[in-house]
Amino acid sequence: MKKSLLALAVLGAFAGAASAQSSVTVYGIVDLGITSLDNGNAAGRVTGVTSGNQSASRIGFKGTEDLGGGLNALFQLEATIAADTGAAFATGTGNNGGFNRLATVGLQSNAFGTVNLGRQTSVIKDAYDAIDPFGDGGTISPISTVFFNGTLGGDQGRISNSVKYTSNSFGGFKANAAYAFGETAGDTGANSSYGLGLAYVNGPLNVQFGYHNADTSTFANPSVQQSENKLTFLGATYNFGVVKLHGAYADTKLENTVANTETKYRNYLVGVSVPVGAAGNVFASYSVNDNRSANDADAKKAAIMYTYDLSKRTNLYTGYSHTSNDTNSRIGLAAIGSNAAGVTGESGSAFAVGVRHKF
Amino acid sequence: MKKSLLALAVLGAFAGAASAQSSVTVYGIVDLGITSLDNGNAAGRVTGVTSGNQSASRIGFKGTEDLGGGLNALFQLEATIAADTGAAFATGTGNNGGFNRLATVGLQSNAFGTVNLGRQTSVIKDAYDAIDPFGDGGTISPISTVFFNGTLGGDQGRISNSVKYTSNSFGGFKANAAYAFGETAGDTGANSSYGLGLAYVNGPLNVQFGYHNADTSTFANPSVQQSENKLTFLGATYNFGVVKLHGAYADTKLENTVANTETKYRNYLVGVSVPVGAAGNVFASYSVNDNRSANDADAKKAAIMYTYDLSKRTNLYTGYSHTSNDTNSRIGLAAIGSNAAGVTGESGSAFAVGVRHKF
Amino acid sequence: MKKSLLALAVLGAFAGAASAQSSVTVYGIVDLGITSLDNGNAAGRVTGVTSGNQSASRIGFKGTEDLGGGLNALFQLEATIAADTGAAFATGTGNNGGFNRLATVGLQSNAFGTVNLGRQTSVIKDAYDAIDPFGDGGTISPISTVFFNGTLGGDQGRISNSVKYTSNSFGGFKANAAYAFGETAGDTGANSSYGLGLAYVNGPLNVQFGYHNADTSTFANPSVQQSENKLTFLGATYNFGVVKLHGAYADTKLENTVANTETKYRNYLVGVSVPVGAAGNVFASYSVNDNRSANDADAKKAAIMYTYDLSKRTNLYTGYSHTSNDTNSRIGLAAIGSNAAGVTGESGSAFAVGVRHKF
Repeated sequence: MKKSLLALAVLGAFAGAASAQSSVTVYGIVDLGITSLDNGNAAGRVTGVTSGNQSASRIGFKGTEDLGGGLNALFQLEATIAADTGAAFATGTGNNGGFNRLATVGLQSNAFGTVNLGRQTSVIKDAYDAIDPFGDGGTISPISTVFFNGTLGGDQGRISNSVKYTSNSFGGFKANAAYAFGETAGDTGANSSYGLGLAYVNGPLNVQFGYHNADTSTFANPSVQQSENKLTFLGATYNFGVVKLHGAYADTKLENTVANTETKYRNYLVGVSVPVGAAGNVFASYSVNDNRSANDADAKKAAIMYTYDLSKRTNLYTGYSHTSNDTNSRIGLAAIGSNAAGVTGESGSAFAVGVRHKF
Repeated sequence: MKKSLLALAVLGAFAGAASAQSSVTVYGIVDLGITSLDNGNAAGRVTGVTSGNQSASRIGFKGTEDLGGGLNALFQLEATIAADTGAAFATGTGNNGGFNRLATVGLQSNAFGTVNLGRQTSVIKDAYDAIDPFGDGGTISPISTVFFNGTLGGDQGRISNSVKYTSNSFGGFKANAAYAFGETAGDTGANSSYGLGLAYVNGPLNVQFGYHNADTSTFANPSVQQSENKLTFLGATYNFGVVKLHGAYADTKLENTVANTETKYRNYLVGVSVPVGAAGNVFASYSVNDNRSANDADAKKAAIMYTYDLSKRTNLYTGYSHTSNDTNSRIGLAAIGSNAAGVTGESGSAFAVGVRHKF
Repeated sequence: MKKSLLALAVLGAFAGAASAQSSVTVYGIVDLGITSLDNGNAAGRVTGVTSGNQSASRIGFKGTEDLGGGLNALFQLEATIAADTGAAFATGTGNNGGFNRLATVGLQSNAFGTVNLGRQTSVIKDAYDAIDPFGDGGTISPISTVFFNGTLGGDQGRISNSVKYTSNSFGGFKANAAYAFGETAGDTGANSSYGLGLAYVNGPLNVQFGYHNADTSTFANPSVQQSENKLTFLGATYNFGVVKLHGAYADTKLENTVANTETKYRNYLVGVSVPVGAAGNVFASYSVNDNRSANDADAKKAAIMYTYDLSKRTNLYTGYSHTSNDTNSRIGLAAIGSNAAGVTGESGSAFAVGVRHKF
């Protein structure tokens, strides 16, 4: 039981003994499995214990304080853990260090929505996380390893130095917007980014739209010098009960205003989620990266995962993904230990079996 | 509600169910705001989201164990968080890594006072923190960015490898003393420091004296090679109810025993704290660094902050500070992102608006 | 009181109010003392505040979830703290960073035993920790600074990327086995290790056997290139009530399959634990490293520690250890601050007095 729930249970029992302030909740996930990986490396297959096959292992601290009048103060601090070696809170900022996943403080109003400051998910990541059958990640097949040419892969969907507004739901509609300061002296726009999102959630239908605009090379393909990246995502799921269907489309433009060139990608995803028995679930997705600016540079990824719930917090899983890269593509290939992260033009596959525990 | 209080509430309700050992308290502050900064840099003004304008963002773990007979065991571990990017627990020791703010274990006796071992605040920092209208810090205008030529700025008022004694209060008087081992083989004095403090707190009056003596360059201005630093602080506040007055004086001698030279500074601060309405407070300070060893090398800083309490734990704030540096001075200038930390002889200003949440 | 115990107390009081899921427990140790050290360094003795004289200072997060049917999910994350400077969660993996002590998730079955994945203690460390009078470590005299030529010293008894099975107890017998993946592409064996252990615990008798086999130089003496290390440990304690006797033997073979050479060590330990009064304990050990492959390269260490319990969680201690190195040996010598970690052929001693607090 989460500490905050415990606090509520206790406070409920001793009504009037204290105000309804909630406690700090220490929470997280440890997800470890045995993974066998072929990423096209000449040295061959590598097998090991890996962290985060289904969901990234993490530890966090969060809390909500009731300020009265329908207003709440919120904070959250969350860090990735490489639970196979224990590595965590590594040096550096952003993707690499400390509370690299979330570091926010904010105010939530029942009338006006929520504003958070700090390091948080980009608006477009909120959109695709809600559509991807593999949900909030893990290494087997998160949507962002293929979409946007892999540009937003992993934690690059998180923005530091940002302000984000999320509306309350109005008849199923919800909007959000974020701005991340570039913090460049004398040039407000340099290295800044902004995003806009719109969602419609009503009964079995979930539609998500997200747009992300990043100045300079913040979210760029490292091999190309850009000055502005424009990423657009549209996706939907529909839950028929016996099966949930997932579909997504994305468009990426990486504009190099120095060389006056433009690199374009289009992405497609179809997926299913199927409950199997009382405690089982199957997720599958097929995603495509269509490189519109280079020949023989497309990639396709197919993935499937089966989870078996031992409780609401703990499940076993097994998953498999296969990525096919054209001659000039190198995305979607994972790595274990000292094994390199893939070879251009090579295809790869990953198989994992493990356990995920939420606390 | 803090977990330890929860524990006490529960234990009180089930009297006799368990001994009065208290739990670990997870606590901290997330303080984030939007800050616009001119630090004299030629590139111009920089604006961004910054952490710790009013109080440094932090996370900590602490606890107290009742050992019986008026004796308690104490521990505390506390780390700074750069909540704008999530960076925390950075590599390195001291100012730069891990539980950089506090890492202590100690014994507190109702009869004899408290002894703590580990990394903790220096005695002189305890004194000036209790006088500074801006209290325990934040980046808008902590006293230590001007006092002691900025030498003790930020976490340099914290000492590793130290033993610190704090007396109980006797008729309002309280004394403390600290010694930090230099841990140099064959030379006990090298890199060691010691401090002595005396406080008198009685009704509206609060008087604080602190002395800090550091061997070699531990707390030195990086541009000067010293062998012994002697810092003296004397300050007082008087609370008239409608307004609280703050005043402080400090004297700094940095002795270079190699070159047989001495660099001297004197510092002055006047400040006010004024409650405004039921939930508001205004703090202001004017502080001076008088360089006694160089011409045209003084600095002055004026700062004001308004806070509005949403609760005991959460407040909004806005603050402004302005620093004037003489031609040969470069202190009191902050930085954001990649923006350099100030230019010699330049003046600067900072404006911030944000929210501070304690958990 | 630990949070999980609190949760149980509360849940017990409100029977049926919630399922028997336990909370996250935040736990740890802060052990700080004043230590004076002679490690043979020409510069002479060094004195300072050190962390972990009796037990390594640490902070951890752990929890157990009752899955029903005699099955539990477990997780644990634990990091070393250098509490004298606050350093913790340093960069890097394994010995050096993050949750360097433990990062595991596992399942525990009342019928079949426990399986854990992640970073954890090696099987042979479980065995010698249960025999060493100085128990789970600290810097005064952990058995592993002498045994195995100091090869498994400190956290090198911990294995990343590993799977470990621990049986339940059958008539006092308990077995465990671990395998750590080498995670080398195309070569499953490279850098892998495995261990086997057997324990018999019955009344006053405790017998522990452990074997550790590490491929390549994973646990090697840095000055020798090996390809396979074979470490065997056998130890026992017998508790007569007024005194507990400890004895251990170990055999180490470091095989260099390139040069076709073999380096051998044998180790012996005798020790006692004696309760002194209601709250006191004395521990002492004498251990030997017998280098079978080089002349004049043996080492001997004698150590004694007295602890005085202020409570179950807090104690004072004082300890002394002396290490004698032959002309060609350099093990068992500690370091403080910038003082080097010992000189070949030199003997050394350490004296410490401090306080250990568990939370």
